[in-house]
Amino acid sequence: MKPFMNEDFLLDSKTAQTLYHGYAAQMPINDYHCHVSPKEIALDISLENITKAWLGGDHYKWRIIRSRGVDENDITGSASDRVKFQKFAEALPYAIGNPIYHWTHLELKRFFDCDLVLNPQSADAVWELCNKRLAQDSMSVRNIIRKSNVNHIGTTDDPIDSLEWHRQMKADPSWDVNVIPTFRPDKAMNIEKPGYADYIEKLSKAAGMAINKIDDLYAALVNRLDYFAAVGCVISDHALDYMMWADGCEQMAGGIFEKVMKGEVPAKHEVEAFKAAVMVFLAGQYAKRNWVMQIHYGASRNINSAMFEKLGPDTGFDGISGHECSAAAYKLLDAMSKGGSLPKTVLYSLNPNDDAYLAATLSAFQSCGMPGKIQHGSGWWFNDTKTGMISQMTNLANQNVLGNFIGMLTDSRSFLSYTRHEYFRRILCNLIGGWVENGEYPNDVDFLGQMVKDISYNNSVRFLGFDK
Amino acid sequence: MKPFMNEDFLLDSKTAQTLYHGYAAQMPINDYHCHVSPKEIALDISLENITKAWLGGDHYKWRIIRSRGVDENDITGSASDRVKFQKFAEALPYAIGNPIYHWTHLELKRFFDCDLVLNPQSADAVWELCNKRLAQDSMSVRNIIRKSNVNHIGTTDDPIDSLEWHRQMKADPSWDVNVIPTFRPDKAMNIEKPGYADYIEKLSKAAGMAINKIDDLYAALVNRLDYFAAVGCVISDHALDYMMWADGCEQMAGGIFEKVMKGEVPAKHEVEAFKAAVMVFLAGQYAKRNWVMQIHYGASRNINSAMFEKLGPDTGFDGISGHECSAAAYKLLDAMSKGGSLPKTVLYSLNPNDDAYLAATLSAFQSCGMPGKIQHGSGWWFNDTKTGMISQMTNLANQNVLGNFIGMLTDSRSFLSYTRHEYFRRILCNLIGGWVENGEYPNDVDFLGQMVKDISYNNSVRFLGFDK
Amino acid sequence: MKPFMNEDFLLDSKTAQTLYHGYAAQMPINDYHCHVSPKEIALDISLENITKAWLGGDHYKWRIIRSRGVDENDITGSASDRVKFQKFAEALPYAIGNPIYHWTHLELKRFFDCDLVLNPQSADAVWELCNKRLAQDSMSVRNIIRKSNVNHIGTTDDPIDSLEWHRQMKADPSWDVNVIPTFRPDKAMNIEKPGYADYIEKLSKAAGMAINKIDDLYAALVNRLDYFAAVGCVISDHALDYMMWADGCEQMAGGIFEKVMKGEVPAKHEVEAFKAAVMVFLAGQYAKRNWVMQIHYGASRNINSAMFEKLGPDTGFDGISGHECSAAAYKLLDAMSKGGSLPKTVLYSLNPNDDAYLAATLSAFQSCGMPGKIQHGSGWWFNDTKTGMISQMTNLANQNVLGNFIGMLTDSRSFLSYTRHEYFRRILCNLIGGWVENGEYPNDVDFLGQMVKDISYNNSVRFLGFDK
Repeated sequence: MKPFMNEDFLLDSKTAQTLYHGYAAQMPINDYHCHVSPKEIALDISLENITKAWLGGDHYKWRIIRSRGVDENDITGSASDRVKFQKFAEALPYAIGNPIYHWTHLELKRFFDCDLVLNPQSADAVWELCNKRLAQDSMSVRNIIRKSNVNHIGTTDDPIDSLEWHRQMKADPSWDVNVIPTFRPDKAMNIEKPGYADYIEKLSKAAGMAINKIDDLYAALVNRLDYFAAVGCVISDHALDYMMWADGCEQMAGGIFEKVMKGEVPAKHEVEAFKAAVMVFLAGQYAKRNWVMQIHYGASRNINSAMFEKLGPDTGFDGISGHECSAAAYKLLDAMSKGGSLPKTVLYSLNPNDDAYLAATLSAFQSCGMPGKIQHGSGWWFNDTKTGMISQMTNLANQNVLGNFIGMLTDSRSFLSYTRHEYFRRILCNLIGGWVENGEYPNDVDFLGQMVKDISYNNSVRFLGFDK
Repeated sequence: MKPFMNEDFLLDSKTAQTLYHGYAAQMPINDYHCHVSPKEIALDISLENITKAWLGGDHYKWRIIRSRGVDENDITGSASDRVKFQKFAEALPYAIGNPIYHWTHLELKRFFDCDLVLNPQSADAVWELCNKRLAQDSMSVRNIIRKSNVNHIGTTDDPIDSLEWHRQMKADPSWDVNVIPTFRPDKAMNIEKPGYADYIEKLSKAAGMAINKIDDLYAALVNRLDYFAAVGCVISDHALDYMMWADGCEQMAGGIFEKVMKGEVPAKHEVEAFKAAVMVFLAGQYAKRNWVMQIHYGASRNINSAMFEKLGPDTGFDGISGHECSAAAYKLLDAMSKGGSLPKTVLYSLNPNDDAYLAATLSAFQSCGMPGKIQHGSGWWFNDTKTGMISQMTNLANQNVLGNFIGMLTDSRSFLSYTRHEYFRRILCNLIGGWVENGEYPNDVDFLGQMVKDISYNNSVRFLGFDK
Repeated sequence: MKPFMNEDFLLDSKTAQTLYHGYAAQMPINDYHCHVSPKEIALDISLENITKAWLGGDHYKWRIIRSRGVDENDITGSASDRVKFQKFAEALPYAIGNPIYHWTHLELKRFFDCDLVLNPQSADAVWELCNKRLAQDSMSVRNIIRKSNVNHIGTTDDPIDSLEWHRQMKADPSWDVNVIPTFRPDKAMNIEKPGYADYIEKLSKAAGMAINKIDDLYAALVNRLDYFAAVGCVISDHALDYMMWADGCEQMAGGIFEKVMKGEVPAKHEVEAFKAAVMVFLAGQYAKRNWVMQIHYGASRNINSAMFEKLGPDTGFDGISGHECSAAAYKLLDAMSKGGSLPKTVLYSLNPNDDAYLAATLSAFQSCGMPGKIQHGSGWWFNDTKTGMISQMTNLANQNVLGNFIGMLTDSRSFLSYTRHEYFRRILCNLIGGWVENGEYPNDVDFLGQMVKDISYNNSVRFLGFDK
């Protein structure tokens, strides 16, 4: 029996251990997509206590506690931080097989030098130990980032954002981690949502120009793209319910936009046509700038409307959408590709059933100039699990070229999540090491060591142009 | 090499063996969903021979034999029981990897103390041995149940059923196994089926009231809910082709019902609206009574119409439906939840591709008061296999809290199926034991032993309120 | 650690090794579905060099190279064969986990007695060695086939084909491998495609009769079926975008056909109705002749339109379709079955999510007379991988009878692909051997050895009637 989460955690063979300890572990981190606050990095805040750090905004953990039947007041309500922590400590042992179990203990080990197993009995000791450590300077947000060997961070930002904290960090000589914004224009595209016209008003102000027609919208977005570029942005992100397409969408989009700006409610096919058209326009802009386009699709958000009203979005009441959109995805990518304006792309689906089709699709849109121009993103959200990662990488290996993969990102709201890169790298090394041990690939540790270093860090650095 | 199905069958590690032999194996059985006949238990019948016991109504086995090209007469026709048994013995060896292969030999071992491998050569010996044993009092239906350590049985019953056999068993001081009915009102909902009006007529008689409007239908169902409750019922079951929803369904349902009662044929969207409305109504009733609502969906039944005409339903001519219904499922659950009338729920899909989405959905509808109020049911029908169970439990562990799981049920028509609980428990213990051996969970055998005992029995007993 | 691809490659246990080396390996090959050129066999051509052999038309390999960002000119363009080979040698090491990696090295070992690992460093040596060998008589196409122990080859042919090369081979006393045509009438069914009327004109000429009405079309197809039968054809193949059905299609088809022949564009539901009707008609013809009907569905072809315009079809720009068609599949099979005209059938879906539903469906349409009349075809195209094969066989074992399986086919355009049968057999033996080692099946090597011999060869030979 292997001890619980020892140094060879998830590394089942000698080759896996060699690849991880000798190669992957030493690589810095490029956390190119996450949701941490640039303000908190700029101000170098400290985390008040372990409940704030772990349970302040982490809806993954809230779901675990809720599933144990705990009163919402003790999860997101007015209960004390100590009580909330206790509820988490009581729930966690039942979450065997859940990545939260491993993430929690990796964070205890790496950030707090704590080998305790979190459960109701140890909760007091863990609470004390963690909070004592969090009070130290060495655990300020910037020091956590430095300690984690993070070189690049991509936050997620609205086009109207002033990016003041990013600019402040760029101007700060004491801070040399590359924290860049990501252009995420969902609100400019979500024409069906209440408040769309209000948002366009704000975008108009941010861009310093009136927005009456779709060409104005495009011009305003270009204005903000340029603004983001000036602060170092090289990556965009889109959250789509599903991949959509409508023949003739580029001709229809202007009329639909004007209609909605007049207060009319667009039909579903109009929403799809408008979004598809804007995606094609923006893809061209990204391609022109050599940016990366990320698309996250397949979430059914806020499916529990009573809890949405009570707690708002991103509180743990989302699901996986099974809506099948492969044909639309192909048409959308083809429309971008046809005009030569398909940028470097990363596709993430929340539905694990899409793994094979996404991996197979990529090869149909690769093109010369760089390895892996079209990427199947690492296991996202509900798929950010050991089995989810293995499925994504196995499908990628089956259908495509695993050696091109740009690897892991945390997608996290927490500064303690960088250990998820370690989790990913162990799983990667175990997968590859297993193939070697099983005679399925030559025992060429130099080449494979370089490959795991590349997937762990170098590939994404090159993909985003951070090496230039 | 491990010997064939020895005491450590499916238990690949020491920890798995300890968890199974030291904890899971000792637990009684709560077979909360099955299709055995309450009459046969009440009358304590004996099984005539092994063909009647195994092949009398088991369409799983018929499919195996049919796949070998055997004439239907030798499967469900007029051939002798000995011939039918021979055909099964000839087919079985080819069904390597099929759960039937394991179920058959577990039943031989546990009920007949027979270690023979069934094949054409051993068929004579097995036939003799089993039939001799079946002729003994110790193998009456009640004695099989007692010998299997079964404490609770949930049969499947129509709202119009008199439940006379259940009442007789309740009144029988010599019988202390808790056999309760399950309220399965499919026929009251299947407005699109021929004979619907006739069924409503029968329901009207059972409830002792006229049914002209939907409020009458609801009142009649409430009447029967009360009747079932008086006989100990705490659980319902619904077989839906798929999860359905229609905005405004609760307003539309009355008109649709009256239309159909007048003999009109409802359109597809009307059928969906009607069913969704009745589901919401019944969910509220279940919630009020603190009952459990089971929903089985995703079967395409009787897809071979020639064989359906010849043999009727439940004869092995069904398939998996791929119809995607995640959005409707979310809306239906949300409608129930919004009014505070979402009861304890168990969701089963016949499509294994739904495993991840179902497991992820649950967490969006959990609520305080009890662990695991919304359950992803154990691998159902075509998924009641080793790999199906592993997939269901792995997804549940990934997305939710495995420790909440209410575990196994046979869903069977046979009294010899209780060994499927053993099969499930071995797979459960092997999954958890493997994690421990691999350093993915602390080696806390006391806690994990309790967890496997809970998943094997206690969780479902608490979930159904049998512990009160 | 196992050495790279040694004699026990993919055989992880003693039983797996015994089953493969003692039984499966000795069996001849029935490659009942592939895309090799009958002309090249008839003329017994030689392969000019290893680039022509490996990269002449193999879009699987092109995708690998493209994914590495290589210029199209160095893949399918005017670059020299040596340059193209170098690009492949440079890309391959990154394709860890991809079946191409294993196929390439199996071919080097079995056809070229070359144990080198292909990479940029070894490319020169491999190029020299392979080309020297290809220049020898022993590596003519016929000698490759003989050396591979191939007894039967099913090519893929259009109904209008003269089959002259098949006839020539039949008449050639020096050639005793059974090379038969497959009747693939896609062009006669693809009523929505440009050029349909032109094709019908050609079919009319081939059949020697005018085609004005659908009955003429049917008569012409029957004429060609008879023609194919006379040259030994016993198998058909259909590439459908998806399985389709429309109630009343058989009545509608005639009108749709005439409409299209007049130059009108059919609506989507008309296309589906027409195709469903022709499928039912042809199924009846196949059944009458005791032929096998293969259906390949679920590909989204030519999704990259710019590359399609540049390179044409079958060049690596295809994807997996997620279009859900289980209900239509059931109705189509039922329509065939109802009239007693469901032939022996092999179903292949390109979407791996269909594995469970296809395997479960089969049992609903099996019928007496032969084992496994309805088959779930071996992992096709994107699923022709180690994990794809394991998934297909595990689902088949779970839902059906693995012992009935007709096993592997290459589906290949290359004469060097026969080693894929070895790859399949190793995976098959490892799966079965693993079950035995794990105590899940008795250690009955005689029976299991016969089973793997049957799945490797005998079952498909019997299924196609080659044993008569």
